Amino acid sequence: MQPVVPRGFRAITTNMGLKDVGDDFAAVVSEVPCRSAAVFTKSRFAGPSVVLSREAAALQRGRGMVVLSRNANVATGRVGAENAAEVRRRVAEIAGIDPEELVIGSTGVIGRPYPMEDIRAGLSAMTWPFPEADFAAAAKAIMTTDTRAKHVSVRCGDAVLVGIAKGVGMIEPNMATLLTFFFTDADIPAAELDALFRRVMDKTFNALSIDTDTSTSDTAAVFANGLAGAVDPAAFEQALYECALHLVRDIASDGEGASKLIEVRVTGARDAAQAKRVGKTVVNSPLVKTAVHGCDPNWGRIAMAIGKLEDDTDIEPAAVRIQFGDLTMYPDEVGDALLEQARRYLGGDEVVIRIDLGIADGAFTVYGCDLTEGYVKINADYTT
Amino acid sequence: MQPVVPRGFRAITTNMGLKDVGDDFAAVVSEVPCRSAAVFTKSRFAGPSVVLSREAAALQRGRGMVVLSRNANVATGRVGAENAAEVRRRVAEIAGIDPEELVIGSTGVIGRPYPMEDIRAGLSAMTWPFPEADFAAAAKAIMTTDTRAKHVSVRCGDAVLVGIAKGVGMIEPNMATLLTFFFTDADIPAAELDALFRRVMDKTFNALSIDTDTSTSDTAAVFANGLAGAVDPAAFEQALYECALHLVRDIASDGEGASKLIEVRVTGARDAAQAKRVGKTVVNSPLVKTAVHGCDPNWGRIAMAIGKLEDDTDIEPAAVRIQFGDLTMYPDEVGDALLEQARRYLGGDEVVIRIDLGIADGAFTVYGCDLTEGYVKINADYTT
Repeated sequence: MQPVVPRGFRAITTNMGLKDVGDDFAAVVSEVPCRSAAVFTKSRFAGPSVVLSREAAALQRGRGMVVLSRNANVATGRVGAENAAEVRRRVAEIAGIDPEELVIGSTGVIGRPYPMEDIRAGLSAMTWPFPEADFAAAAKAIMTTDTRAKHVSVRCGDAVLVGIAKGVGMIEPNMATLLTFFFTDADIPAAELDALFRRVMDKTFNALSIDTDTSTSDTAAVFANGLAGAVDPAAFEQALYECALHLVRDIASDGEGASKLIEVRVTGARDAAQAKRVGKTVVNSPLVKTAVHGCDPNWGRIAMAIGKLEDDTDIEPAAVRIQFGDLTMYPDEVGDALLEQARRYLGGDEVVIRIDLGIADGAFTVYGCDLTEGYVKINADYTT
Repeated sequence: MQPVVPRGFRAITTNMGLKDVGDDFAAVVSEVPCRSAAVFTKSRFAGPSVVLSREAAALQRGRGMVVLSRNANVATGRVGAENAAEVRRRVAEIAGIDPEELVIGSTGVIGRPYPMEDIRAGLSAMTWPFPEADFAAAAKAIMTTDTRAKHVSVRCGDAVLVGIAKGVGMIEPNMATLLTFFFTDADIPAAELDALFRRVMDKTFNALSIDTDTSTSDTAAVFANGLAGAVDPAAFEQALYECALHLVRDIASDGEGASKLIEVRVTGARDAAQAKRVGKTVVNSPLVKTAVHGCDPNWGRIAMAIGKLEDDTDIEPAAVRIQFGDLTMYPDEVGDALLEQARRYLGGDEVVIRIDLGIADGAFTVYGCDLTEGYVKINADYTT
């Protein structure tokens, strides 16, 4: 089946010596000007790629992105900043656009300079126009410890929206995520694009946590080149939400070492912010994550995790309901048959934990994964 | 060698059917009235033992404690509250004291009622006076998943101070810890005892994190029966600090699955609170914990973890110094020889991570452990 792609995007992927095997460099650029929106990590140790991209994003006319994988180029000092600027400037020159029209992204090891000689050699061999964009190849090139490439596309009226993402560890995005890029030929005013992009990111990528560790490189951006004409903004927001949610679920279930996707649906909260706090404290609890991994219907650990929110004094234990899927574990007494059912339920690939706080109507859903020996192995061995 | 014990404490340990093998019940009671101080979990899901003990602690005349291990008696409803009250009342009757003179502690599985028939049978066989206190046996009886009993004693003038503790998981105490009890024959005014106890707990147990999960049962108390006469309060505070620190280090290195103790010493912060935030974000980062486990000198993950404190806008990456022991990894460039030294350093049983923020004089040290496959195994298998 021919993949559905938005009009007017060109892309190149290649190996520049950061990965032993496979592409580690990707650039996707629109042939025509775009409107864009982007959000970034709030880390105090944000790298030069984020600094450059943040400045560019303010202009709202980003045409595309360039990504080097396997190396975050973070905490690399003045040299690191110069290298990031040089890479972006060279790609812009090749494509005949302003450097400020490019977002640059990098994730991977912190504290090691780029192999600039290899990168310069790779860039000097590049010519415009790049081939028509192959988003699957771009998604693959930006992978670090991901076990599979993450991409998705949907139609929205005459327009098409494509999303790609990478990331499986150091993941608790805050106002952004890892690396995620959306490309569309829809025509949307910049202010509207910015507003709906932030709303969707809050409900999707900012609701995701693999391991509570926030990357120094998180970047999410959308590029809209308008070639398909105007679309209904509400329909586009829904399409973007579906794409983002698909990528988030894909990232969670591919979380480092993960064997299960965990979805925590919190309802009955004072407001959405409280529901999100409850969801995050549960999905981030190592004891909840290991219980799910072990198919142990240990709802007491969920109660424990909620209990950690000592400042939420309106949470009354007696008013709380805790469910695995549709199975109510608390506050009613749990018999052996129900425990056995719950054990079987936890054996699936996707586990939904429902929590109702019994306070008001606030609701929020967060996404994460179980904690396994595999996570420890990957991260004890992953290199410096 | 005869252990050093404070005068006037009597104790009993026995099996009441909560553990398959070994003692699971301990009561330690002073023959004479005491002054006491205590702190407890702030969890919203605190169990009835904590509720009862908190009321008793307010009276500052606790004479000792009774602990049932392996069962937290949390989220067990009205029956759980009645059971906790009954156990405490019966022990008090046996010892001929007020129930309000006893702290009751329980940790273990959440959401399962006590086996009251076995417990009643055990209590009915008990007579006063209990034998002279064997604190090592009491420390053993209160263990849950601990691999070794934790106890310590020091002299302070003519007085002796003994501390016992249990806990290896669900550990990020907040104003208290797991179960920790200190017994002394020193004579100290109640107000002074309370103040110095809280100061010491803040610097020791509240500086400890195994897995970011706060127990619903955390309880720490000190009982001073005065039989050794007055002591210098400053000397007593120092003795208490040493005992508490010993237990904290013992708990951290016995953390579930832990192979190494991690100590994070933060200096140069705006104030102690900021230093503690930085220490906690580092010692709690799964990526830092797995790197230490893998002996990987991946200081970039420490930078990442500090970077998560987005509200600490006075932390300037360029002003930060990061060291493994005495080896400076950041901000100066790290050569291969230094990496190799750091790798060897991380191979030890105790890893000190030093972080200087270069802002002012605030300092704080926190304690934790590495994250291993063992932690995941223990907690995926531990039961409901």
